[in-house]
Amino acid sequence: MSALNTDLYQLTMAAGYFAAGKTKDVATFELSVRRLPEQRNFLVAAGLQQAVEYLFDLKFRKDEVDYLRSLPHFENAPAEFFDFLMDLRFTGDLFAVPEGTPIFGNEPICIVRAPLLEAQLVETYLLSTFAFQTMIASKAARCVLAAKGRPIVEFGSRRAHSPGAGVLAGRAAYVAGCAGTSNTEAGMRFEIPVFGTAAHSWTMAFPSEEEAFRALKRLLGESTVFLLDTYDTIEAARLAIQLGPPLWGVRLDSGDLAALSREVRRMLDEAGLREAKIFATNDLNEHRVAELIRCPSCFDAFGVGTALATSSDAPTLSAVYKMVELKRGGETQYTAKFSDEKSTLPGAKQIYRYPDHDVVALYSECNADFQGEPLIRPVISQGEMVTPLPSLEKTQAHAVSSIAALPRELHSLDEAPAYPVEISPRLLEMAQELRDKHQLVRSE
Amino acid sequence: MSALNTDLYQLTMAAGYFAAGKTKDVATFELSVRRLPEQRNFLVAAGLQQAVEYLFDLKFRKDEVDYLRSLPHFENAPAEFFDFLMDLRFTGDLFAVPEGTPIFGNEPICIVRAPLLEAQLVETYLLSTFAFQTMIASKAARCVLAAKGRPIVEFGSRRAHSPGAGVLAGRAAYVAGCAGTSNTEAGMRFEIPVFGTAAHSWTMAFPSEEEAFRALKRLLGESTVFLLDTYDTIEAARLAIQLGPPLWGVRLDSGDLAALSREVRRMLDEAGLREAKIFATNDLNEHRVAELIRCPSCFDAFGVGTALATSSDAPTLSAVYKMVELKRGGETQYTAKFSDEKSTLPGAKQIYRYPDHDVVALYSECNADFQGEPLIRPVISQGEMVTPLPSLEKTQAHAVSSIAALPRELHSLDEAPAYPVEISPRLLEMAQELRDKHQLVRSE
Repeated sequence: MSALNTDLYQLTMAAGYFAAGKTKDVATFELSVRRLPEQRNFLVAAGLQQAVEYLFDLKFRKDEVDYLRSLPHFENAPAEFFDFLMDLRFTGDLFAVPEGTPIFGNEPICIVRAPLLEAQLVETYLLSTFAFQTMIASKAARCVLAAKGRPIVEFGSRRAHSPGAGVLAGRAAYVAGCAGTSNTEAGMRFEIPVFGTAAHSWTMAFPSEEEAFRALKRLLGESTVFLLDTYDTIEAARLAIQLGPPLWGVRLDSGDLAALSREVRRMLDEAGLREAKIFATNDLNEHRVAELIRCPSCFDAFGVGTALATSSDAPTLSAVYKMVELKRGGETQYTAKFSDEKSTLPGAKQIYRYPDHDVVALYSECNADFQGEPLIRPVISQGEMVTPLPSLEKTQAHAVSSIAALPRELHSLDEAPAYPVEISPRLLEMAQELRDKHQLVRSE
Repeated sequence: MSALNTDLYQLTMAAGYFAAGKTKDVATFELSVRRLPEQRNFLVAAGLQQAVEYLFDLKFRKDEVDYLRSLPHFENAPAEFFDFLMDLRFTGDLFAVPEGTPIFGNEPICIVRAPLLEAQLVETYLLSTFAFQTMIASKAARCVLAAKGRPIVEFGSRRAHSPGAGVLAGRAAYVAGCAGTSNTEAGMRFEIPVFGTAAHSWTMAFPSEEEAFRALKRLLGESTVFLLDTYDTIEAARLAIQLGPPLWGVRLDSGDLAALSREVRRMLDEAGLREAKIFATNDLNEHRVAELIRCPSCFDAFGVGTALATSSDAPTLSAVYKMVELKRGGETQYTAKFSDEKSTLPGAKQIYRYPDHDVVALYSECNADFQGEPLIRPVISQGEMVTPLPSLEKTQAHAVSSIAALPRELHSLDEAPAYPVEISPRLLEMAQELRDKHQLVRSE
């Protein structure tokens, strides 16, 4: 990761803040998703681990600073600014909802409180990190719900938005309850179970399907999964049966999947291979998975690729990172944006979760005034970890139980009535005060 | 980049090929997009540079091989396989259309000819590299066409599918004719012009908009762009005029952009600031850009973010990587897949481009038999570069002129009649022969 992986304006603003003597100002920014995509009844927060790693690794290399110096935008920047950049580390605070927590529109996923320059600089990286993994985890949660207990494996690396995104998609899918991923780097880096056996090209690389299947069986033993549709699915099923156990099962990747699964199931059962499983792939998504289960079909597990690794029906989240407080010279000012479509609420916030609704309040309001569970926790304090992040396995368990605890209508794949997110009276009041004050200033 | 950034089945197949003594078999794979998304009349090939870098860097680390050894899938793999992996490098050939070339469905973007194991292993990374950048370049080309000569800047890093994808999106957008990117890492790594000045938070970080604007002007001089909509666009325009030159211009990011641009233009002109430009942002895409130009409005340049960096209206391409030839023991076999929805044509191919159509032929057919320009060129031969890749600037020039040379109806933002891609008689014949032979084998 490079400290230059940010929008240029974060760096020009940094130079400007430095020049304006604002290195001691402390800003608070909130990262949230403005509104849920129509196709999502809830989001699942993810990406915190990569955000934390980024904040700890943040450091400019000399060649990066030299590059900036060469740009016309920095012609008037003070020479000391470049030394300042060389020494820059993240020294602020990070608050966040734990990964795997369901969240809703306008609820902060994380809060950054840091010297203005630092807090501003990290915006772009934090946005793409949280928004991408949250988007994938949210899609994965729907696939997992659709499969009603059958495992979903994330298979989408090849269609992810770049090879690096594929690795992170595997992670985010696992956070939300997928059984694992086909991405081997994700498996190693994040200790996620990995899945995969052979492609059509395997079958084509041998003089006959039989030789291909025999070679696979020798290698994989009881992990063997025969891919049946390279030439003719039913003939390949016969061959699989003839070769017999050990065998995990078979995979269907084209044709009328439900009908083929019933036929192949019947053939396997008749041959006494009741333990052999049937795995479905082929451009699946949560709706196809639900449909295949309803059909009925005989699938034991599903591989979901493109639709999951790209969240193809909702491939963006309206994630924003907005300044909510600014402390200069000991005085805290609450900030907000009042333009028509994009207004924001001032002040750092806390989310309180009740069984059937959330309340968003000021972080400074007293916890004891709320019965709900506060979701936002301190993660980094003055550049130091507060508590280590949980293992990914624990995060997944947290996600699965938190999703299960949501009102049942949100589990539907169809659009459910919006989950109620209330704003605390104190927060509403402060927003109004600020708006009045701002209008006062403008009318002067 | 990690050699493990691939689907697990590529590695299990590698172990299987090794165990089956297939290390000398040489396979040819083709990477293509099955069909264009409805919203695209052509694609723009991109990603070759990253593909080449990957192939040259491909190398397993010891901890990566140890990880594989620890997986149940490799329990039966021969011990020598792991030594083989440690020594593995890409020793094959790569053929590809130059980056920036418009291409269509089922036309190979690249061809890999290499020992079967190597050719198979690289599938996942090559697919996500080519498919992602091609997808973004194709979207960018539409934005550039819509802007009718006005510059488009790629601003979407924050919404890209992970921070790494943002850097590559900046590159791909530039390939297809964008003026530059806001991503500073992309600027440094790929020598792309970078753009950006200040956000709303900049204005909010100062006691007044005037102080914020003054500080920006001190820093940026004639690169200054005032963002007008933090509080009130027209008042901010008055302030910008009052502060006067030097000034690049102003940016509008919310409200009725066209109406505001006309009003702001009138104000700037009346104040004698005819040189000051107006820049539009706010969830733009090619359609919004076209609409703003038609309106009419007074925009001189556009920043396109989310829609461009995620290709949000068509966020996936049906990219596939299929074995088309296999050479074992000196004998070349042509391979294809015959299942209903996903059939492929055998043999390595060449694309010949004519003014109004393409012909896809076998690579082995004689160039002299075709008048059209052959698009696929050798890039890597036996693990060595054939010729260096062109600079990104030259690639952009190639893209712009090649897109301009396409039949005019393809330049429409609406769906145009499909561009004709013919298959050579020899290729059709070979596909039929292979299909007959396969059915013969099956009916035996």
